[in-house]
Parts: sequence; C-alpha cells; structure tokens
Amino acid sequence: MDLETGLQDRSAPDLPERAWRTDVPIRFSHCDPAGIVYFARYFDLLNGVVEDWFGEALGIDYHEMIGPRRIGLGYVSAAADFSRPGFMGDRLECAVVVERIGRTSLALCVHARRASALVLRARLVIVTTSLETHTSIPLPDDLRHALEHYQENCQ
Amino acid sequence: MDLETGLQDRSAPDLPERAWRTDVPIRFSHCDPAGIVYFARYFDLLNGVVEDWFGEALGIDYHEMIGPRRIGLGYVSAAADFSRPGFMGDRLECAVVVERIGRTSLALCVHARRASALVLRARLVIVTTSLETHTSIPLPDDLRHALEHYQENCQ
Amino acid sequence: MDLETGLQDRSAPDLPERAWRTDVPIRFSHCDPAGIVYFARYFDLLNGVVEDWFGEALGIDYHEMIGPRRIGLGYVSAAADFSRPGFMGDRLECAVVVERIGRTSLALCVHARRASALVLRARLVIVTTSLETHTSIPLPDDLRHALEHYQENCQ
Amino acid sequence: MDLETGLQDRSAPDLPERAWRTDVPIRFSHCDPAGIVYFARYFDLLNGVVEDWFGEALGIDYHEMIGPRRIGLGYVSAAADFSRPGFMGDRLECAVVVERIGRTSLALCVHARRASALVLRARLVIVTTSLETHTSIPLPDDLRHALEHYQENCQ
Repeated sequence: MDLETGLQDRSAPDLPERAWRTDVPIRFSHCDPAGIVYFARYFDLLNGVVEDWFGEALGIDYHEMIGPRRIGLGYVSAAADFSRPGFMGDRLECAVVVERIGRTSLALCVHARRASALVLRARLVIVTTSLETHTSIPLPDDLRHALEHYQENCQ
Repeated sequence: MDLETGLQDRSAPDLPERAWRTDVPIRFSHCDPAGIVYFARYFDLLNGVVEDWFGEALGIDYHEMIGPRRIGLGYVSAAADFSRPGFMGDRLECAVVVERIGRTSLALCVHARRASALVLRARLVIVTTSLETHTSIPLPDDLRHALEHYQENCQ
Repeated sequence: MDLETGLQDRSAPDLPERAWRTDVPIRFSHCDPAGIVYFARYFDLLNGVVEDWFGEALGIDYHEMIGPRRIGLGYVSAAADFSRPGFMGDRLECAVVVERIGRTSLALCVHARRASALVLRARLVIVTTSLETHTSIPLPDDLRHALEHYQENCQ
Repeated sequence: MDLETGLQDRSAPDLPERAWRTDVPIRFSHCDPAGIVYFARYFDLLNGVVEDWFGEALGIDYHEMIGPRRIGLGYVSAAADFSRPGFMGDRLECAVVVERIGRTSLALCVHARRASALVLRARLVIVTTSLETHTSIPLPDDLRHALEHYQENCQ
C-alpha cells in the first residue's frame, strides 16, 4: 500500500507485551467488492474488540453500562491507519493499549495484526455521557480504577 | 460533548463556499441503542458521500472504476472528529474538500453539518490500487485532472 | 438464478399501479466479495424504504414514532425472494403494498425492480410494541387510518 | 410479541439433538434505537453462522469456495420469524438443520435460542453460482457429499 500517508505512524505507542489481545475472524460480510475488508466495517469490528476488552480485561460489563446504568460510551474521535488489506478467512490479533485517561474521556490505541504483520492501528477516543442528556459526565469510578489498573499492568 | 479531544480541529481546512454538498438523511438503522448515529456507520455514510461526489462533482463513475476498470479506491487512513451526536431524522449536509493530490493517493476532508452546526469532520486518505494485485498504482489521468479541476474551482 | 425455490412467488400480490414507489441506489458498500448486493443489506435497505414510505405515503413520521412516542415498529417476520442479483450502480425501484392490517401488526409486500425486471420481493410483518415493555400494542389510530387510506387508494 | 403472524411456524422442522450448534454473542452494534437486535443484522449474523458451519460441520472452507474456487453461495430466499427480541449481552445458541439438498441449491433452517427460549427461526435457500456469470451451477461434489453426510448424522 501507499506510504505517502499514515497520519499516526510516528505517534502511535509501541504495543506492550502484556496488553490484552483477542482474535477477530474476518468474514465474507466484512469484505467489499474489492475483495478486502471494507474500511467502515473495521470500525464496527473495533467496537466489538472494545466491548470484549471491557468485560475481559477491565471486568466491566459494557452492555450493563449502556443499558441499566444509562452511561453512554460515545466516540468523540476515531482514526485508523490501514497498513495492509484484510481478507476473508484472516484472523486478526487485536490488542488494546490505554493511551490517556481524562476526566470525562479515555483514549485507546488498538493494533491489529495478521501473524506478525500490522494490518491496522486505530486511535479511539471515547467519552462517557449521560444517555438522558447526551452530555459528557466524569468517568465512573469503577471504570477509572479499572483503566488505571490495566495501564499499570501493561507497563 | 467533551472538548478534551478533537485531534484534527486545528488542522482541518475551512470549508470553501463552492465545495460540492449533498444531504444525507439519518435513518433508524444508522443509530445505536444509545439513540445516536453509530460511529462506524458514519464511515459507511461517508463512503456514500464520496461515491456521489465522484459522479456528481468529478464526473467519474465510482462503480465503473471498481468494476470494469478494476481500480480499487481503498482507504489507507480514515479519521473523524464527532462534535455533536446525530439523531434519527436529521439531514446532514456533507461537503467535500480536496486536501492533497498525491502520486497514488488523495486526501479528502468531509464536513457534515446539521443546520449550521458541525456534526463531524473527517479526513479520508484514498489510495488507487490494482484490484488484481492490491498494490498502489498512480492516480489515473482522468481522476487526477478532475481532482485538480475541482480543487481550483473551490478556491 | 435457480428456479427450484421461490417461496412466495405464487402468493405475492400483483403490484398495483398506484402503489408508492421510491428509487434506491445500490452502493459499493451494499455489495459483497461476490460483487452483488449482500442479502442482509437488502433487509436494511428495505427498512429505509419503509421509513420513507411512512413519511411520504402515510404522512406519519417514523422517527417520531420510535423516539418521542416510544412505539416500536419491530419485525415479527421478514422474508425475501431474490430473483436476480443487484449490482453497484443499479437504481432499484421499490414499491410498497399493504397486504394485511391486523390488530397489532401489519404485513407489507415490497417489490424491487431494475428497469422492468424483478430483483426481489419481500414480505415484512411489523408489530407495534411498547418500547418500555417490548410487548405488542394495538396499532395507533393514526397509523391504522393511514394504512386503510393507503390500501384503498392503491385499489 | 404478536402471534397473529409466524409464517413458518407450522412447517419448520424440529431441531435434531445432533445438529451442529454455535454461540453468537449479541453486541451493542447489533442493536437499534429500540434497544433490541436490528432485524437486518440478524441475517448478517446468520451468514456468519453458515460460514462457521461450513468449516466446522461440513469441513468445507467457505472463503476458499468464494475466493479461489469462484463459486458463489448466493441467497435465492431468506426468511425469518422473530419470536422474542434479542438484547445486548445475550448469547444465542444457533443450530443448523439441512432441510433440502437440490441440484443447484440447498435449504437450511437455523434456530436461535436464548437459554431454552426460541428467539428466531430462519429458512435460508442458498444457490451455488459461477462468480463469472452469476448463473447457477450444480452443487460441487464435496459440498453435496458433506451435506448428505451431515443430514444423515443429524437423524
């Protein structure tokens, strides 16, 4: 692929050994008529990675947060660099790094690799909101503590 | 929404008066259980905007490019800042700016507004590829000329 | 395509001259690696047709129904026969027929054609629900009257 | 939900003990502003179930079929009855039954349950096609044999 671009290449953090990882299978329906993963679908897959990471690495139920707790986990920013195309039948190993824990938001970096080759790197900035008012609210304590714990553990 | 973030806010270009615009209706299926447009779906909608812009503003048939001409229009990078949530029933006015015309790639900025309020700003970097080899190829001449013409016309 | 199948072929009603119609453009992202519209995406497109039909033919705001009125328009059944593949760049003319108006549900038939050739025929059974309890509720009066009016008008 | 409908209820086969099963987690992005799984997304999830069933139960690589072998697995018909809404965080147990093996097509029934409660039942008719001509071709021998073997094994 073209190397003229790659907005985040320089600034993305290295992937720590102890970052949580999950395997994402690439399906027929993730791909487009060009035969490769449709870029918008990657963002959808990334949200699935974040959901599983909440439950498995942070010990926080993503769906309970949105549902009973009425706390939104909205994106204020999402960016990805696609280094190599993904194909049907691939299994992408996705790892999550916490880049920043703010007052009302968190920044994540997700790396996706096929074997050892980087397929994409994404930066996702999530804001916690009230689902009644759609305005930002401070990160709930359990989420903040879990994020801090995860971040320390990765170092 | 949280203002701690907004990666591209400072660097995004102003929207020229004469940029091509289209209206995108926000549907039920674009929205998530939080009641707002699902972020991944925005990228899908943006691809639709780019398709229509190819045909209407550049005079180049997007589907003919992918189909008979076997030239891929893949994304090497996609980034968006979401300033305000989008809701079912909204009509977002989307405008396309050409930021950069490279040898094998082009960088676009898309602004989406509801009335005069910015909803999102995206930067999309598209590379032209051979759909046989999935490697980058120089922008075809008709696309390069159309992009240059559009860019001049906007100024 | 294979003619061994076609569950609804015999039972689907003819398309009345005066049925409401809308054009649906087929996009790159609607298609799969086989180069034709992905079948699941058709159902999504059909929901968009139903949304527009509510507003334009019935005079009822679909989004207001789901949002402020908290009345769900859920599917209890959805079925489609795909007669011909759809391709990028197609414009499908979709027409809506009301098949049945029940106490708590309505059955629609949607026909999609490219030029005069049938691409798909779908039967959608929608139930009105309370979005608080997710149980069925009688069709609201304005919807029932609009459906009856539409059905008469088509004959 | 409304019981006025349910097209396939009477004709759908019972689920054999020995049918292949898989668990499908319901994600945030599968759900709509009504807070339940969006009906079109179910069809997408069902395609994923079919993909995994090909590999795990039939021993045939779905992606190799579409890709190198250039054999399409298109839908001529897809129908589902939705008995209960699905929610974020659900895990649906999906089982696949072969209903009919034709010359150029196969009919499957998929049952999805949450605990022991039926959530949906779908009938999918898949036709094998040449991806060069988009016309039907006889089921390849390995697929036919695997289907017959699976069907016998279930009884």
